[in-house]
Amino acid sequence: MRVFVINPNTSEAFTAQIHQELEAIKRPETELTVVNPEHGPVSIESVRDETLAGPHLLELVQRANDEGYDVILLACFADPGLDAAKEVSRIPVIGIEEASLHLAAMLGHKFSITAGFRTRVPVREWHARLRGVDAAYASTLVMNMSVLDMHDKPDEAKARILELGRRAVEEEGTEVIVLGCAGLAGYAADIERELGVVVIDPTAVAFKIAEAIAELGLRHSKVGRFAFPPDKEIK
Amino acid sequence: MRVFVINPNTSEAFTAQIHQELEAIKRPETELTVVNPEHGPVSIESVRDETLAGPHLLELVQRANDEGYDVILLACFADPGLDAAKEVSRIPVIGIEEASLHLAAMLGHKFSITAGFRTRVPVREWHARLRGVDAAYASTLVMNMSVLDMHDKPDEAKARILELGRRAVEEEGTEVIVLGCAGLAGYAADIERELGVVVIDPTAVAFKIAEAIAELGLRHSKVGRFAFPPDKEIK
Amino acid sequence: MRVFVINPNTSEAFTAQIHQELEAIKRPETELTVVNPEHGPVSIESVRDETLAGPHLLELVQRANDEGYDVILLACFADPGLDAAKEVSRIPVIGIEEASLHLAAMLGHKFSITAGFRTRVPVREWHARLRGVDAAYASTLVMNMSVLDMHDKPDEAKARILELGRRAVEEEGTEVIVLGCAGLAGYAADIERELGVVVIDPTAVAFKIAEAIAELGLRHSKVGRFAFPPDKEIK
Amino acid sequence: MRVFVINPNTSEAFTAQIHQELEAIKRPETELTVVNPEHGPVSIESVRDETLAGPHLLELVQRANDEGYDVILLACFADPGLDAAKEVSRIPVIGIEEASLHLAAMLGHKFSITAGFRTRVPVREWHARLRGVDAAYASTLVMNMSVLDMHDKPDEAKARILELGRRAVEEEGTEVIVLGCAGLAGYAADIERELGVVVIDPTAVAFKIAEAIAELGLRHSKVGRFAFPPDKEIK
Amino acid sequence: MRVFVINPNTSEAFTAQIHQELEAIKRPETELTVVNPEHGPVSIESVRDETLAGPHLLELVQRANDEGYDVILLACFADPGLDAAKEVSRIPVIGIEEASLHLAAMLGHKFSITAGFRTRVPVREWHARLRGVDAAYASTLVMNMSVLDMHDKPDEAKARILELGRRAVEEEGTEVIVLGCAGLAGYAADIERELGVVVIDPTAVAFKIAEAIAELGLRHSKVGRFAFPPDKEIK
Amino acid sequence: MRVFVINPNTSEAFTAQIHQELEAIKRPETELTVVNPEHGPVSIESVRDETLAGPHLLELVQRANDEGYDVILLACFADPGLDAAKEVSRIPVIGIEEASLHLAAMLGHKFSITAGFRTRVPVREWHARLRGVDAAYASTLVMNMSVLDMHDKPDEAKARILELGRRAVEEEGTEVIVLGCAGLAGYAADIERELGVVVIDPTAVAFKIAEAIAELGLRHSKVGRFAFPPDKEIK
Repeated sequence: MRVFVINPNTSEAFTAQIHQELEAIKRPETELTVVNPEHGPVSIESVRDETLAGPHLLELVQRANDEGYDVILLACFADPGLDAAKEVSRIPVIGIEEASLHLAAMLGHKFSITAGFRTRVPVREWHARLRGVDAAYASTLVMNMSVLDMHDKPDEAKARILELGRRAVEEEGTEVIVLGCAGLAGYAADIERELGVVVIDPTAVAFKIAEAIAELGLRHSKVGRFAFPPDKEIK
Repeated sequence: MRVFVINPNTSEAFTAQIHQELEAIKRPETELTVVNPEHGPVSIESVRDETLAGPHLLELVQRANDEGYDVILLACFADPGLDAAKEVSRIPVIGIEEASLHLAAMLGHKFSITAGFRTRVPVREWHARLRGVDAAYASTLVMNMSVLDMHDKPDEAKARILELGRRAVEEEGTEVIVLGCAGLAGYAADIERELGVVVIDPTAVAFKIAEAIAELGLRHSKVGRFAFPPDKEIK
Repeated sequence: MRVFVINPNTSEAFTAQIHQELEAIKRPETELTVVNPEHGPVSIESVRDETLAGPHLLELVQRANDEGYDVILLACFADPGLDAAKEVSRIPVIGIEEASLHLAAMLGHKFSITAGFRTRVPVREWHARLRGVDAAYASTLVMNMSVLDMHDKPDEAKARILELGRRAVEEEGTEVIVLGCAGLAGYAADIERELGVVVIDPTAVAFKIAEAIAELGLRHSKVGRFAFPPDKEIK
Repeated sequence: MRVFVINPNTSEAFTAQIHQELEAIKRPETELTVVNPEHGPVSIESVRDETLAGPHLLELVQRANDEGYDVILLACFADPGLDAAKEVSRIPVIGIEEASLHLAAMLGHKFSITAGFRTRVPVREWHARLRGVDAAYASTLVMNMSVLDMHDKPDEAKARILELGRRAVEEEGTEVIVLGCAGLAGYAADIERELGVVVIDPTAVAFKIAEAIAELGLRHSKVGRFAFPPDKEIK
Repeated sequence: MRVFVINPNTSEAFTAQIHQELEAIKRPETELTVVNPEHGPVSIESVRDETLAGPHLLELVQRANDEGYDVILLACFADPGLDAAKEVSRIPVIGIEEASLHLAAMLGHKFSITAGFRTRVPVREWHARLRGVDAAYASTLVMNMSVLDMHDKPDEAKARILELGRRAVEEEGTEVIVLGCAGLAGYAADIERELGVVVIDPTAVAFKIAEAIAELGLRHSKVGRFAFPPDKEIK
Repeated sequence: MRVFVINPNTSEAFTAQIHQELEAIKRPETELTVVNPEHGPVSIESVRDETLAGPHLLELVQRANDEGYDVILLACFADPGLDAAKEVSRIPVIGIEEASLHLAAMLGHKFSITAGFRTRVPVREWHARLRGVDAAYASTLVMNMSVLDMHDKPDEAKARILELGRRAVEEEGTEVIVLGCAGLAGYAADIERELGVVVIDPTAVAFKIAEAIAELGLRHSKVGRFAFPPDKEIK
């Protein structure tokens, strides 16, 4: 099985990190390719960034189709460009947000998602509604840290999640925490142990679901929302 | 008041048509600019097209901000790029879909929206949910005609709306019809007379609401979902 | 264009205040009439008050129709009698609550509404549901002040909104504040500056939307929910 | 126990009919009073009619409180004036629509409600939403008959319900039919036998629930939505 | 009228307590039988317990049908086995949770339900959604006491409800409190007096509604969700 | 990895069929056990059947925990006993309905589920609501065939699904069909080819997701809804 993973931002360091994480959990027989576009924003933290990354991302989706991969993983929480990718792709495309939110809804009554800053809460909230799992959405855990800060101050990041998570468990009934920010996966085991919740690392979870879907020969439906777009002149 | 209207596709004929329609209904003192991007798809009929149009559209939003316009109208049903536009814009941005759906919910208990083909129904349905007016969404009237066909066979297009609209009134309680396809505005009066419903031409309605918002000095909130994105290296 | 504004309570001072506010923002060519019924409660703070005001209000709606006005504005938050008014009226009737809630849902992800006392929160909450914008409703800001108190102690009223608004922004993600109480419009600019949110004065916003609707020749649909009632003997 | 039943229209024939129906099912020890206002519409078929009946109805609610009744039954489907009645009343007020819709949701998965004409469907639909039982609302059975017609042509009325009910059972999964029109109660047994559904006569059902509530000493809560209104000058 | 009350746990002390409570409020002519199964858990505090009690409970439902009772009351909050009971029963079956939640939604805008421990909150929340009254569900009052503790320390239990209830009234707009735990009914009057809310004792309320339903000859619908199951070999 | 599959009915032929299907798709290193209880109904077609199967099923869940399996698959659509199983189990339990509905919501905008008879539609509908994927639920395809009939007349069964599926695609926008009845999996490829939709075989899909979850070391959260039940005397 050949899995094509797209990191939609242009940070090669981040691409390498995803590659390393997935290399460690992939099945032996799975062939793994992890790429990022050459052009576009170096990280994706707004709908503006998603918009700028979109066309470059679609080129990579096309390449995966042309080169005969079995499944595409879109490795950026918020799933930028996911619907467009499903439209143009014959092979299945899995977004790490959609896969982790649906799994979270199965593993507990309510889930919370981390976010760097308060301005991302509305996106978390309406994506839960968009994915149809809003009944299981409890809250967003706002870390008030940039991605860079999370990387530079790992102890602070972990302490923040523990504090926010504990309050969410007590006040909002959170049973599952979805890591909506990159670079937090390493803390999952500690957080699970201390809070008793389940912690979901979206990239890992979505990768395994992608393997499962490809193995079953499943794909997204091409008969309605994700039908191939009509041909079109692009100036 | 200076209104900047963006046709996000690259069809200059369509830009001219919008200009002509709005010129006829603008207030005398309103200064009107209607533009389209140089690059991108010639029409927007899929999320893929929306994705390709996105970056070019944001450049025009930036230009309107730089040149001191009072309000921006995004003149494509489905409101492609609307959230990103609101993020980067200091001045208010109005999408013709959001404005017409909210007005439709005020003017009747249930509304229906036209669409060219069945594959666009899911987009209509989840946009109604996204805009929070799903309780008032009755159905999508699927015309089974391309935009070109609607233009070439106006009598057939009108007959189709009448037939679909009549059934929607009887079977789904539709009270308002929102024209979700370009080039249908000319039939509104006839349809209103024959079916007794209210027909909403999104471009006209949104333009008037844009004038009203600008006149009141209102804008979208920059404190949460539409906050300015953090600066970012774009490769 | 001739706009007929109904203040449904019997306080002439309040009618004069509305007149003054709208006179300042109306377009030069708009002809403005602001009236109140002779009989009924002097203010409207309960559904009982709305019920008592109802029949008198409908007489004024009839008068506006008889005298050939272009649009009616119902100038009381909670929109008492709005559905009945739309039933009996051929010309469009706009309620200031419905217009401001729909606009609030366009200008931000979540809105909060002010109220004098805690007992009015349920009305705010189910009106948001009734208008179909409940996904965007964040909370009601309970001022614990009577209308009289707000008028007599303007500094206290403003301080209260700032305090409640700041908490709503931080804890509930409020991005837009709708002034659900009379006499608060003067503070909008200060609140916007201090909290970064958008503040909506329902009377002003609905008036401009009424002008827009009338200018477009739009009206509410008479084919279903707002059909003319059958003739009836009234004892 | 003393039950005060209000027919909010001014038709004495209808009041007598309710009296007769309830006399037959009341418990021996229950003391029954059935009244209608002197002024107002002779039947209630629109929100306009509800508005005109409102103030007169509130006077009767006040009278029942003054005369020490144990419970008030508001005997008009659509429950006109119910919230206002609960506000001004110390003793419990039960609306026949709210009682029958909640009971319908207990007795089957989905219910349908009859209505005279198509224009009443929106009211049925949003009342189900307002009462919070919209998940169990299947449809409205539109009889296309006036109340007078139903009275004059009982065979036709019954045949219509059977036809509409059968289709609702098959196509919409209706399991319970709520008679939303007066004068249909006599057919309940036949409809139940022929369609296998449960048929609810709102007046009878609500009366028995009113007896139960009064017997338990229960009432509506006066601490929030139905708090006594503040005193007010009424001009 | 003959009412058959099932306490689905195997605690005879609890059965006796229900018997005593209902004996005091039943109508003189009502014949009352209260039973519990011989086998199964001594109390029901988890879905596991509900599952173990299920088959024994269904035998009692069958017995009530065989012995010609008029109505069955299922006397355990959470209504374990209710849907199965309705399937196998020809005579009406009322669950105390469904009856009290629907009545609570009529008596106030929002209700709260007590629970012994935090782990029961998800059940309360999705049962409110399941019964279709989630719009009126405010919160669960978590007492952090076992049923045994509530029985041994009545003063503490009452003080806890008062404290939790007061906060719910102020912060969540609770207007009605449903006692979701056994043995709390005795405090209802005190809580009502001190908090101004309405307190619902589910067993009493559901019993009176059961009497009302039986008196009207009503039953649950057998045409869909509660149809008799097909015959089946049980190994 | 050791997977424990529970067929909750007592039909050994059906157990063998599941075993054969999963044997063909399991990974080589996966160790597969498929069992059914000794006692209980031979098939599960009602909530009564689910109730009778419940206690026997829980014993098997306990056995899988005692014997150190990695994950449990509950192989009966409708997921009977799933919540109780999650309560008592330390190791993850996956229901084939929950897994397939969540996956269906990812692979298309709307899904339909097959059912044998009309009386099962309410269960399909409220399970979609219970699992929080109701926005993606389009309809239930009612085959009007017993499980036995489907087995004896495979051509008729397949023709029925094609007919119902085609109508669902056209009228309800169905993009994915979930096979909610046993023994239909063999037709999936033909249906996909003829209708263009995606067909989901719940047992296969859930098995692969169970493998993925076990491989990641994930489990359901034990901190709230699925906490271990308190110890209890079982008479």
